[in-house]
Parts: sequence; C-alpha cells; structure tokens
Amino acid sequence: MKLTTTQSVLTELLETAKNGISTRPVDPILGSLLIEASDEGRLTVIGTDLNVSIKTTAITNIIQAGVVALNAKLLTDTVNNLGSGELDIEVSERTCVISHSTGKCRIVGRNPEDFPSIPETENPTEISIPSKKLQAALEACLYCSSTDETKLILTGVHFHLQGENWSCASTDGHRLALVSSKLEGNYSPISFTVPRRSLTELGKILSTTAENSSCTLKVGNNTIQFILPNAELTSRLLEGEFPQINHLIPKSFANELMVERKGMEIILKRISHFAEKKHKIVKILWEVNDQQATLMTGNTDIGDAVDSLLIKTQNSIGENIGIGLNSGYLQEALKHISTDEVIFRFNKPLQPVIISPLGGLLDQLTLIMPVEVQDFDKPEGLAKYKTDTSKPENENETGAEGVDQLPEREKVSNETTNVTDTPPSDTPTANKSKSRKRKQELKPEPKLETAAV
Amino acid sequence: MKLTTTQSVLTELLETAKNGISTRPVDPILGSLLIEASDEGRLTVIGTDLNVSIKTTAITNIIQAGVVALNAKLLTDTVNNLGSGELDIEVSERTCVISHSTGKCRIVGRNPEDFPSIPETENPTEISIPSKKLQAALEACLYCSSTDETKLILTGVHFHLQGENWSCASTDGHRLALVSSKLEGNYSPISFTVPRRSLTELGKILSTTAENSSCTLKVGNNTIQFILPNAELTSRLLEGEFPQINHLIPKSFANELMVERKGMEIILKRISHFAEKKHKIVKILWEVNDQQATLMTGNTDIGDAVDSLLIKTQNSIGENIGIGLNSGYLQEALKHISTDEVIFRFNKPLQPVIISPLGGLLDQLTLIMPVEVQDFDKPEGLAKYKTDTSKPENENETGAEGVDQLPEREKVSNETTNVTDTPPSDTPTANKSKSRKRKQELKPEPKLETAAV
Repeated sequence: MKLTTTQSVLTELLETAKNGISTRPVDPILGSLLIEASDEGRLTVIGTDLNVSIKTTAITNIIQAGVVALNAKLLTDTVNNLGSGELDIEVSERTCVISHSTGKCRIVGRNPEDFPSIPETENPTEISIPSKKLQAALEACLYCSSTDETKLILTGVHFHLQGENWSCASTDGHRLALVSSKLEGNYSPISFTVPRRSLTELGKILSTTAENSSCTLKVGNNTIQFILPNAELTSRLLEGEFPQINHLIPKSFANELMVERKGMEIILKRISHFAEKKHKIVKILWEVNDQQATLMTGNTDIGDAVDSLLIKTQNSIGENIGIGLNSGYLQEALKHISTDEVIFRFNKPLQPVIISPLGGLLDQLTLIMPVEVQDFDKPEGLAKYKTDTSKPENENETGAEGVDQLPEREKVSNETTNVTDTPPSDTPTANKSKSRKRKQELKPEPKLETAAV
Repeated sequence: MKLTTTQSVLTELLETAKNGISTRPVDPILGSLLIEASDEGRLTVIGTDLNVSIKTTAITNIIQAGVVALNAKLLTDTVNNLGSGELDIEVSERTCVISHSTGKCRIVGRNPEDFPSIPETENPTEISIPSKKLQAALEACLYCSSTDETKLILTGVHFHLQGENWSCASTDGHRLALVSSKLEGNYSPISFTVPRRSLTELGKILSTTAENSSCTLKVGNNTIQFILPNAELTSRLLEGEFPQINHLIPKSFANELMVERKGMEIILKRISHFAEKKHKIVKILWEVNDQQATLMTGNTDIGDAVDSLLIKTQNSIGENIGIGLNSGYLQEALKHISTDEVIFRFNKPLQPVIISPLGGLLDQLTLIMPVEVQDFDKPEGLAKYKTDTSKPENENETGAEGVDQLPEREKVSNETTNVTDTPPSDTPTANKSKSRKRKQELKPEPKLETAAV
C-alpha cells in the first residue's frame, strides 16, 4: 500500500471515522482504524465498536492498493500534529511509514484480517431526510433517551414514518421528547429504534455536512445505514416495542404561556444551586393575571432562592397555578430549544407540562411530569413585588429593613443608580426598587412524589 | 451586617479569596469564606486552607458592620449567576439574604467564630519586588518544584536575596529552574522557601494585578505575607535546608546552540507519542556543522518517529553530539519560556543541558539531566536528508521506494505542489523533496539510566 495525500484530507477522514471507536475498546483491534486504499483511487477509513461503524472515503493519489489496521489514538495524535502539507504513506508488512516535510513516523499496525466486517443491510427500505432536519430532530430528541443500559428500548430514539409524515420520539420514563415533520415521498408505515450512541455520532457527522445535503437511510431488519456525502454510519437497531407515547400528550390546554428562553435559563442557573440535591425541584408560580412567573426553591439546610420573569399569556383560565418541576429536566428542555421564545402548555398542577419552541424547523415538544409540592402559596414578602410600584422609594414603611434605613443622601444616590447606572438586567422584569420590598424569608417545604410517565 | 455593593465588585472579591480554599476542605468551615463588613466601609473576604490564606478588600456602602462565614461554592455559584447590577446584602443570625433586581437568595452560614485566624508575621523583613518580575519568576520556576509531598523542602520555591541580587530556584531532583534579577534596595542576606501551592495562588492574583504595581513581601520566621493592591496572601514557609544548586550549573559550555522555540515544541508534540511510556526519552542529534538538529524516538512496539529543525550555532567544538532527554521535561522547559528563541548550552552527552530564553525580563535557566541512550548514530536513511539536494527529483535510484515509482505525469504534479501549493512547514527545515529520500527504518534501542541531580 502506497499513496500520497494531504494532512488536511487525512485528518478529516480519521477524525470522523474514529468516532465509531469505543473510548474503552475491549480488544486492541477495536481500538484501531482500518485504512484501505483501492485501485480506483479511494482511500477509506473505518472505525467500529461492533454496534456502530463509521466509514469515510476520499479520492486521493493511490500508487499501490492495500489495507492496514492502525491504532486510532496514535494515528490521529500523529497526523493532527503534522504541519499542513503533503504526506507520503507507505505500508509494508503491517507497518505504516508517514513521511512529511521535516521527518517521518513509523506506526506498527495490526492484522487487518482481524478487523470486524461491517454488517450488510439486506433488502433495505430507503428513506431520504434533509440533513438539517435530521440534525434538528436529533438535537431535540436525543437527550430524553435513557442512558441506563438496562432500559433497553428506551436507550434509543424511535423513528416512525407513514405517508409523508415523519416523527422521532424518546423517553427515559420521566419525560419525553417528540418531533415531527413532513417529508417528500409517500412511505409505507415503518418504525424502528436507533441506539442513542449511534445517533450521537451521527449528530457529529451531520454538524460537518453541507447545509443542503440529504441523508439516505437504508433500514433493514436489524441494521440501519445513514449515508451522507462525507461518511456512512451503520448501526444495529434496538429490539423490542417502543412504548406508545401519543396518548400521554394532552390534546388541549387550559394554559398556554410564553416566556423568554434565555431569561428563564439564567434564573434556573441562578436558583438551582439551592434546590435540594436529590430531586432538584423548582417551583414555578404562574401568576397569569400579573403576566409574571415566580420561580423558587424549597427551604433546605443551605438556604433558598426566589426569582421572577415576565410571561405573555396566550391562553389562560385566569387562575394562578403552581407547578413543581425537576430543574435539571427543565434546563435540558430549554437547552435543546433553539428559538428565543418558548411556550409552556399545561392544564392542572400534577398533569403533564409541555414545552415547545415558538417556531423552528420542526414541530417539537418536551413533556415533563410535574412533582407534587406543598406550601405553594407565594411567600408573603413577595406579594409586594408587583404591588409596591406606586410607593416612593424613600417611604420609610418598614423601619429596620432594607435601604429604607439609609440616610437621605444615600437613598438618592441609590435611586440614581437604578435608573441610569445599573446595566440592564438579564430578565425582563421589574426594577431594583421593587425587589427591595421582599422581606419575608421563604419557607416552603416540598413533599416530593416523583412522577413517572 | 447590612451593605449594598455591585455584582462585579463582589464577584472579584469572592473569586480571588476562594483560591485560598482547598478543593477538598477537611472541615465545612474551611469550605467557607469569611465575609466581614467594617464600620469604616471596608468589605473583606478571606479564604484559607490553614497553609495559605487569601484576603481581599473593597470599599463599599456598609450600612451596618458585621461578619459571617458562607459556603464558598454556593456563594460564588450564586453571585456569578446574578446579572450585573446592585445587590443588597443583609445578614441576621448567620443567614445572608442577597437581593437583586429580579429576586433574592438566602444562604445559611456558619459561626464566623469557628473560622481560623490568619497567622501574624512577627518582626518581618520587608522586600519589594515589581509584580511583573515576580510573576515572571514564578512562571519560570514553579513547574520544576516537586509535587510529591514527601519531598518536603523540594515542594517549594527557594527565594534568596543579598544586596541588590534576588534569585528564585526550584528542583524536583531531576531538573532545576533558576531565575535571577536585580532589585532596588540593599538587602541583608535572607533565604526562605515558599510552598508551591501558595505560589500557584499568588500567580493567579499577580495575573490580575496592575502592570506597574509592586508586591511587598513581609518575611517572618514561619510565615510570609505577599501584599498586593488587590489582595493579601499569607503562607507558611517550608522548614529545612534547600539544596545547594549553584555548583550543579556548569560555568562554561563547549556548545551553545539556538533553536526556534515553537518549531521545537511542535516537533516534540508530534514525536513524543512514540516515545516509550515510562521515561519518554527523545534523542536529539545536534549536527552542528549542518546547522540542524534531528529529534528521534527509540524503536518501540508501537513505532517510532524522526524529525528535524534548523539550529544556529553560537559556539561549538564542531562535533556532532547526541543527547537523550525526557521529552516531558523538555516540553515543560520550552513551555515556560516566553521568548521566540531558545539557547541550549551543554558540554558532553551525559552532562547537564541548560535551556534559556534569548532575552526576556529575567536571567532564566532550566537544567535537565540527560539520560544515556545507545545507538546514537544517525539512521542510514537520514544521511540523505542533507546530501541529496543536488539530485533531480525523478532520478529513479531506489527502485521500489518513495515517489520514484510514480509515473512521469504524477511526478510533475507532485513537484509543482512542493513549490507552489504546499503551505509553509511548521519548522524552518529542508523541503519535502529531501525528506522523501529517508528510507531506513530507525531502530535505536535506548538503554536508560535515569539521572538525578
């Protein structure tokens, strides 16, 4: 085997294919990349962990065909650190010598015949999905699949096609994600579940694929191939029946409320340190008439926190509602939405909460099951948050508390700061002078009943 | 305790002081920061692990003096995630409430009386060192001190002052670093050794200190204080006698050779993956007459590598010399030099190698002890590296090897690439066409005898 190529071409091939390899290969041959040079000028690199295989190909100057298996880490570390420029690669007796402008490296390889073969997909059904849509679907779904290998079918994302309709769903038993879209074509009904790890690697490939390309899926009985311009990924399919999830999603909602995504993310980041460690519950009090949501944590040994942001009511029964949610699930749901505004839809406190982007490339939703939380009245001190706006800053109504104790001169300087000097707050809410009126300690004591789908 | 301040002022105080805290505090009070508000308007924050204490202070609007000890991680996580703007802080019964523009957080604190007191430095000797010089000295020295706590005095950096001369030295028994400079003042002889960890934290503070400021050192019997405009660091001193190192550094050198630092760093990064794992030895063949250094690794199970770069001879006995060095030590020495060019000074293969910057703020050197390596002849194939330049590219002198087998058409395209298309190599060495002539496998088998200072 003998060829010339450039460092950049080889790096791209290796970096993509090595994602097929396990971080802890059980056998040295599975820690290797198979490099194959064909007489037709194709240089192919394959990495596999037996469950998923990634194959990349480039046209290059092949002088003599051949095949070799080389340690993936050593090879990529070496090639990544070569300067850009041309490389001469020559393999004889399983040993590969890479010559570059200032030196050369010799890598001792393994027997390429020990390298596992990639399973064929027999009599496949072919499906074509625009790359960007597939990427968006994985981004919106993958995180809700289970990372617990004992949960079998729940460790994957469930694809379903029928006619022109395509959907992807995932759930770990506590929350679920569902995306759907239309495709060109008219497909006979077909369903299959692809392992999380395979789709994670597919996502990496998709992120480097040309904007307007398509991904061809070849679905067989036990395996699936994803064929992209820059790589082919072959994966086994998960066996078993994916749970019916459509009936879990309510058909109508008493409340549809819009929030600014980044504002809520910042508040969650701020207060979630205070949530008790096990269930990480935050309580959201939706004050629909005041167009405000107040987020709070339960009272724990370390303390607690409360914060507010503006909401826009799209549809509401006009009653305040308090809902307890796992702040980690909520943060993840928001993180996997790309639009600026997010819609929360729900009926009653212990019924599913649906979180969706406003707009976006796909129909997308995350369903989170709330948890029961006691003491959901708004803490007394907070009541002043909205109602005190008419009171002048210097009205000394609380004696020993807050800035009201400041001498007159200080108070004036503080007021000036509020209006002119304070940089804009991260969330579109009331200004500083209002929050000073919150004086009551928060002492809610949530009683948790973890809900499952 | 009651005060108002801004998020940015408080963040700066907390982020600096918390570096005094151990990553794994043995007692919860040592995981806390002591916050003290004085009647004089000073807000002071202290973090300590008993060996080192960091104290930061800012002038702020204090309404009521007081003191509290708050969990450092929770407090910094909280304050970092507040939007920029004004904060009201109020402490009553060890509980701190931070009110900001959209909400508030309540942190339950600990008894401030349990917080350890910072040791006083009695009858100290005062020394003044420009901050930038002190920072440069730590950068150049700290990495050579030992991380092995059983090595006691070697886990610190040894300061010595006499007259206007100041030096810092460190060694882990295999290599040493020494920097020296002149100071304003005339100091009676004084020596002391400061623990690595204390100086690591001091380095972080120095990196945020104003360019033209000075650091005042107050040296006592067992403790030292470093006083900077933005913080004070108090550290215990290490007990014991620091080894005499000056006699280890040769007074004259048969060889003084200059290399481009980045070029050598890139080559080391490239070939060190091939060095055997235990001693990580690279062999440098200094070809003084050819103004070239060739770096190679020993032949191991996984392979080997060879690479070359240009050198400039400043002083030489005109004989090629091969030296075996630990590539990790060599990489670290280069990493802690800030100038573009580096001078290697040495006499014989098994005598100390001195590495220094060409220029820089301080007199700086690293001494590395070489290791004995057998088979130091330059591999046969490499001999052509310099001598083949006159041969035409298409002379088919080696039959089955290299690009010489290419059909005429391919060869022409390759030559064109060399001259016009290939991006510049990372190292200032011979071009591609020369390196193609290296055909011999490298089979040096180093016999290691780890040398100690």
